Amino acid sequence: MKKISQAVIKRLPRYYRYLGDLLENDVVRTSSKELSERMGVTASQIRQDLNNFGEFGQQGYGYNVEYLYTSIGKILGLEKEYNIIIIGVGNLGQAIANYIEFERKGFKVKGLFDVNPRLIGMIVRDIEIKDVSEIESFVKENGVDIAVLTLPKQKAPEIALNLEKWGVKGIWNFAPIDLQSSQGKICIENVHLSESLMTLSYAINEKNDEKSN
Amino acid sequence: MKKISQAVIKRLPRYYRYLGDLLENDVVRTSSKELSERMGVTASQIRQDLNNFGEFGQQGYGYNVEYLYTSIGKILGLEKEYNIIIIGVGNLGQAIANYIEFERKGFKVKGLFDVNPRLIGMIVRDIEIKDVSEIESFVKENGVDIAVLTLPKQKAPEIALNLEKWGVKGIWNFAPIDLQSSQGKICIENVHLSESLMTLSYAINEKNDEKSN
Repeated sequence: MKKISQAVIKRLPRYYRYLGDLLENDVVRTSSKELSERMGVTASQIRQDLNNFGEFGQQGYGYNVEYLYTSIGKILGLEKEYNIIIIGVGNLGQAIANYIEFERKGFKVKGLFDVNPRLIGMIVRDIEIKDVSEIESFVKENGVDIAVLTLPKQKAPEIALNLEKWGVKGIWNFAPIDLQSSQGKICIENVHLSESLMTLSYAINEKNDEKSN
Repeated sequence: MKKISQAVIKRLPRYYRYLGDLLENDVVRTSSKELSERMGVTASQIRQDLNNFGEFGQQGYGYNVEYLYTSIGKILGLEKEYNIIIIGVGNLGQAIANYIEFERKGFKVKGLFDVNPRLIGMIVRDIEIKDVSEIESFVKENGVDIAVLTLPKQKAPEIALNLEKWGVKGIWNFAPIDLQSSQGKICIENVHLSESLMTLSYAINEKNDEKSN
């Protein structure tokens, strides 16, 4: 498959979400024009994005919602299942462990790990929290696809290095640090929640400035 | 102030984070070149971004880390305090309520609201969870700047509409729906955690495809 630009890839989950909403409302077919109005993206952008992956639409008919939804799901790898572990079972780690929607999409939480003796041994969603020293053997025995890092930034780089060595395929990182793959074998997605909050405070202040001008 | 592009604004919190890391390590001065190497952004991009907001660097000296950090903090509105309420006190809502780092940056959680009778009356971080029917009076009495929406998507649009009417300045939305301001008075930042996870599963599959070619 040809190399798809990051910008296109970032838009795919959004298409998937909007199509999922249409499906929920029993909409059978849609058009790039209709999607465009709902999503605030131009219709030609949508056609161009989807053309990267094949021919989904038909002249005069538009798109079959279910077919397009399923196809984009496949492109995103959502027809497969992923074994997930969560490292750092504080509030955010527990929130992710308990978020049913991820499980529905095929992301199955298989292991929970922490350094805190008060957490180790506790059960969250039928899974016993284990000591981080057990991650290596767990990964090797269970085949872990994705590790979620919800731990302090100081500990994140070393754990990421080890996870890559042990053959984990992806890291979903919530520690406030930009992790990078050291050997190019592991995929990393860094999420920076505080940055999104700061973008909001910027916008609030900019609006206030406008008013006072 | 002239209109700054969204792309620049999105990068500001990252500069802020990297400068904060330098400060923590007692680094007194830095250069666009050094920031560039750490951040994977070109040095000229950094100079151009920062020039939008004034003259921060000096030829031959570079940037004073603390001054630049504080200045960017001000641009982001972080020298102010924000009264926050959280609507939907499930796992994610509680995780946000308990995240000390937001409080340190000036985002103070003042109220927690839910519809679930089992949660109402519970205390999270010294705050009693109230019924959502009390949001209006709470907002009017306490002056709420930001509402965090960690609730099902079905309920998000109506609450957003009301929050705008009641004078709340910003919404940090975690419901899987793109909220928009109806009157242009409220700022909205939509966070889509699942989309970031799907981007990761896409990347994992793309890497697998590469290997098998």
